[in-house]
This record gives sequence, structure tokens and C-alpha cells, in this order.
Amino acid sequence: MSEKSRVLLDLDTGIDDALALAYVLGSPEAELVGVVCSYGNVTVGTAARNTRFLLELLGRPDIPVYLGADRPLRASTPFEPPAGVVRIHGADGLGNVGLLDRPCNTPARGADLTRLAGVLYGREFYYVPTGPLTNLARALDALPGSVGELPRVTFMGGALVVPGNVAPCAEANVHNDPEAADAVLRSGLRTRMVGLDVTHQVVLTREETVAWRELGTPAARLFADMTDHYIGIYEKNNPHMGGCALHDPLAVAAALDPTLVTCLPANLRVDIEGPTRGRTVCDPDRLRDAEKDCEVALAVDAPRFLEEFRTRVRRALGARA
Amino acid sequence: MSEKSRVLLDLDTGIDDALALAYVLGSPEAELVGVVCSYGNVTVGTAARNTRFLLELLGRPDIPVYLGADRPLRASTPFEPPAGVVRIHGADGLGNVGLLDRPCNTPARGADLTRLAGVLYGREFYYVPTGPLTNLARALDALPGSVGELPRVTFMGGALVVPGNVAPCAEANVHNDPEAADAVLRSGLRTRMVGLDVTHQVVLTREETVAWRELGTPAARLFADMTDHYIGIYEKNNPHMGGCALHDPLAVAAALDPTLVTCLPANLRVDIEGPTRGRTVCDPDRLRDAEKDCEVALAVDAPRFLEEFRTRVRRALGARA
Repeated sequence: MSEKSRVLLDLDTGIDDALALAYVLGSPEAELVGVVCSYGNVTVGTAARNTRFLLELLGRPDIPVYLGADRPLRASTPFEPPAGVVRIHGADGLGNVGLLDRPCNTPARGADLTRLAGVLYGREFYYVPTGPLTNLARALDALPGSVGELPRVTFMGGALVVPGNVAPCAEANVHNDPEAADAVLRSGLRTRMVGLDVTHQVVLTREETVAWRELGTPAARLFADMTDHYIGIYEKNNPHMGGCALHDPLAVAAALDPTLVTCLPANLRVDIEGPTRGRTVCDPDRLRDAEKDCEVALAVDAPRFLEEFRTRVRRALGARA
Repeated sequence: MSEKSRVLLDLDTGIDDALALAYVLGSPEAELVGVVCSYGNVTVGTAARNTRFLLELLGRPDIPVYLGADRPLRASTPFEPPAGVVRIHGADGLGNVGLLDRPCNTPARGADLTRLAGVLYGREFYYVPTGPLTNLARALDALPGSVGELPRVTFMGGALVVPGNVAPCAEANVHNDPEAADAVLRSGLRTRMVGLDVTHQVVLTREETVAWRELGTPAARLFADMTDHYIGIYEKNNPHMGGCALHDPLAVAAALDPTLVTCLPANLRVDIEGPTRGRTVCDPDRLRDAEKDCEVALAVDAPRFLEEFRTRVRRALGARA
């Protein structure tokens, strides 16, 4: 166990978060030490319920789940996903697989971001947020030491060279809390950004969900139903893609194996004001700095990632056969 | 002469266009075969006058100057530079060096974009537009054959990973004629984009204009006056830069020596509608195409370029001592 890469996920557990969770559980070199939850694709409460449900389904009820932030840094009320997001991820956040009536056996542990900061500080492990960066921004605020001593954080979010998915310039995770993303990206923390630049290049087709159904496990069937729903949404909204983008799984994969992506070293900021609110962009004030905090993934070895995805997720889904 | 690289410039001759012109004339491996003029920093008429004046000053009155487009593709009236641009480049387009009263001895030749298309077609040379892409878009329209047979065009313009300079997402050259830039970038023509991503990383300081004055030539004095004006504008608008950006000279340099820049292969489009009008961005419909038309410069060897710039421009300015 001690040779494995320790992974702490930070999920707003919708469909591709679930796929990322399965990816980690199917990765023999990774040890999932916990999941912090966030609002985004769903409310933070639903994210925690979904995470616990998925961990039980995948045979790992032992992994702790933490309730993180329920709203953006500057919001006065808890976040509720807008109608468009509910359409994409389903009313239950997992493609309407019937989870609304399904209670979760164990409650999530309460949020303790100071504790998260303590865990982050000075430990060698992979922290992978795939939702808004609110939890990370709050944890950095509570840090006892310099962010320069932390391991590089790989996050799913942003769009540097491609259009956004919720606004012409903004990707959903960053758009959900631009202030948090800006604080993280200008904190000096070393990050690796896995945004739409690369996640729109890795596409899963129904061939794979057919293969999952053949595995015959309850987990495989549920993941197939959930992912078919997600692919169906892409077929309506992005018909040219021929399948669904694997946003969150690619972030996890790039954390475990950075050679899957090719990165531009850069210092980023997030636009806070005006029509470009939520845009990730190079910070003009730090453009000529020799030191770059962030590695922005701009190219991906899609065939190799997809092969890893198939192998690892099948392993996770088949384990309870 | 036949071993030299043939260069055709397309300038909207303001200050950094003048520096690009001197760069080419000071490049021993380059043969400047002509300058097509464009509106942008100035009107097309002023661009032609300035170009002829500069060619005479630099001892090359033999090089032909062509009048190109006087307005964007969809404009109904000739382009007049807005007040902000007049402030940057001066009322004469060259930093108010007194050119308004200075007649030009020889008129520019009339625009003949079909002829330009003929020149472009099937010839091995470097075409370097440093203004809007209107002339190129019109020439491509008139092309007798496939754009795939043309040499790669290196242009100054756009901003892929940094903010724009005339709008949050738009660089001035592309913003001046988004329809033309979009047509060029989606034509299949192979291009190399030298945008604000890299031009804001190459900064000239007053040290160099001091050195030019010591050359003692009329050209060196005029270039020093002109460039000091330009640096003064940057000191007001971009004080953190510590000098002026060398936009157009870097495009010329990257055309002659592509190893000066590191590029992302990409298929680009230009946003035409809404608040991001004029934004250069990866085309989602061609994101996963194996073939990429454009090489977008995202990094630059600034010290090496600046050394080349100093050597070549001094050579051009000192030649008439």
C-alpha cells in the first residue's frame, strides 16, 4: 500500500465524476484516501449521497466522504444546479438511474477545510478537484505554510484555447466560482489544468457501454445506463462529437500519468468582471516571469488515454461480479 | 540573390510595421520583393506614403509598394483609424516625426489583388501580413488553385491564450476585420500565427533607441524618435512592461526563422458575433482533426530574437551613414 499513489478526489458527483471515481478505483497504482464533495453538477448534499452510493456499489464503502462547500465563495445561499445542468446529469445527478428514492446508509462527514488544509500540507499525494475550486481556495486560505511546498494539484476546469461550455469564454467549473479559481491560480500553488482544451478531445462511444452491460455486474449496468444518458445529451448538444467527453476521468488520469497530456507552462488568472467572467487566461502581469505555476494541458494522447480508461473502468465495474 | 528568401510584406505602416520593414532590410538572407499596404494603424493611403518614405530613407526606393484594401471586407466606407490608434502611432502613423508635411515622391501602385493572388500562387516565398487580413482574404478568393499548394503564411495578429489589446478577447488586427481573418483561418491555408501570446513577451527598451542615435544617420535618428514615442505610449498604458512590444518585427523574424518560436498546431476560427467578436479560438468542429492548418506561436526565445532585432535593425539604419 505504501508504494501506491495516494489520491484525494474533490467531486461534484455527476456522471463524469462517477466515471473518474471508477477510474481511480480501477487504477492498481492508486490508493483513494477520500472524497471531498462539492456543489456544481448537483448540490453538495447530492454529491455526497451519490459518492457514498457509488463507493458502496463499487465495493469500497470504507473510503471516507467529506462534505465540502455548499456554495461559491461570494454566494449568500447554497448552490442549486440550473435546469440545463439537471438535464445533463439527471435529477439525481447520475442520469436518472433511480437514485432519488435510494437512501444513503452512512452520512457524509462534515466539512472541515482546516483539516483538509492540514492533509494537503506537506503530504505527497494527488489532489484532484473536478468541480469548482471553492474547497481548494478555502483550504489554501487556512494553510499553515507556503503553497510552494504543496504537491502539484491537477484540476478539471477552464478553457484556454477553445470556447467555453456555459458561456463563450467560460467552462462550467470555473464559471461556478471564478473568484475561487482566480485565488487558486494566483496563489502560487503549482497546478495542472485539464480543461476543455483536452477533455473535448477524448470521446467515449456507446461501444463501451455495450461492453459494460456484458460484464453483468450491478455496477456495470448502472454505469452503462448513466453513461448512455450522458452520451444521449451529447448527441443532442454536440452531435459532431459522436459520443461524450470524458472530462473528469482525464483529469484523474493526467494526475496519475502526466505523460498522457502535453502542457503549456503558464501563469493564469480568471476574468472576474464583464462578459468574459469565468474565462481562464494567461495573466499579462506574469507573462514574462520565468517561473510558471501552471501546466495547461493543450494536447492529449487520446488513444492511449481511452485504452487506459477502458481497462481501468472495466476493472472497477467488474470487481463485484 | 536567388539563394535569398523572398519576402512580401503586407503592412498597415505604423511604428512597429516600420521596425519590421527595417528588420527585413537588415536581414542578409532576405530579399524584400514588395510591400502591399493595408488600412489599420493608419489609412491605406498613409500606409503607402509611410512605406515609400521609409524605403527611400532606408535606401531602397526601388522596392515596389502596392495599395491594398482600404476597408474591411464588409465595410461600406474606407477605414479611418480611431482616436486611440492615432494616439499610439501618431497623426502621421510614425510617432509624429513630422511626416504630415512631407510629400512622397512616387505614388504607390494601384491595388491588384488578382495579381497578388497570382504572385502568391505556387511561389516559394514568405508573405507576412502585419495588419488586418483583408488583402489576403481577397487574394485567396481570387486564387486560381488550391490554398494547400501555397507556402505557409506568417501573420501578426490574434491572441489565443492572453487577453486582447482592443477588447477582452480581441487583438487589433483581427478585430479590424474578423470576417477576413475567419475566412483565412478556415480556408485550409497553412498559417503561422504570431499574436499577442508571444509579441507581448518581446520588449524593446530605450537603451536601444539611445544606441540608434549614436549611429548618427538620418534613418537612425528618425527611428529613435518614432520608437521613443511608441515606448512612451507603452509607459503610460502598460507600465509593467518596461518598454514597447515588438509585434510586427517578431512576425517577420518568425517567418524567416521559425525556430525562434514554439508553436501549438491548431485549427482556428474567429468569433464573429457578440462580445467576443474578433477572438481567435480553436475551432471546436476541427478540434480532433489530425491535420492542423495553423501553427500558433505560444512561446518565444526572447533573448535570441532581441539580439537578432538589434543586429538587423542597426544594420538597416546604419547602411546610409
